[in-house]
Amino acid sequence: MAKKRGRADIRERFGFAVKARREELGLTQEDLAAAARIHRTYLSDVERGTRNLSLVNVERLAAALDLSLAALFGRVDAGADGA
Amino acid sequence: MAKKRGRADIRERFGFAVKARREELGLTQEDLAAAARIHRTYLSDVERGTRNLSLVNVERLAAALDLSLAALFGRVDAGADGA
Repeated sequence: MAKKRGRADIRERFGFAVKARREELGLTQEDLAAAARIHRTYLSDVERGTRNLSLVNVERLAAALDLSLAALFGRVDAGADGA
Repeated sequence: MAKKRGRADIRERFGFAVKARREELGLTQEDLAAAARIHRTYLSDVERGTRNLSLVNVERLAAALDLSLAALFGRVDAGADGA
C-alpha cells in the first residue's frame, strides 16, 4: 500500500473532484456554497485543496452536488494517480 | 433532498461502517488503530459515531481497512436509511 508515491494529497483530489462536478452542473462557487450551506471562501479553499474537510461538510457538499458519497469518492479515487 | 429524516448522522453511519469492516477483517481496535496510525481511543470514538473525522484520517482508515474510498462510502451510503 504505497500511499503517497505519485498520488496527490487527498485534500487536492477531493477539491479537484468537487470543482469538476460543480462545473459539470454549471454552478458558480456562490451557487454551490449556498446550496451546501458553507461559506464561499471556504469552498474556494476546498477546491484549491487546502482544506481538510470533516465528514459533516463532506456530506453537505455531496448532497449539493447531487452525488452519493460513494459516487463523489469514486471521483476522488479516480483522481488518485492522475492530475 | 430531505437530509435528516429517518437517517442516522453521517458520523454514526461512518462509525458503523468502520466497525463492521474491522470485524469482517477480524481486527481488534488496537490492530486497526496501529495500521491507520491513529490512537486507539480516537478509533473507539469514531466507531461510536462521536467524531467528525477529516479527510486525512478518513483516507488512513480506508487504507487500513483495505477499501477504496468509494467502497468505504458505499457502505456508509448503504447505512443511510437503516440502523
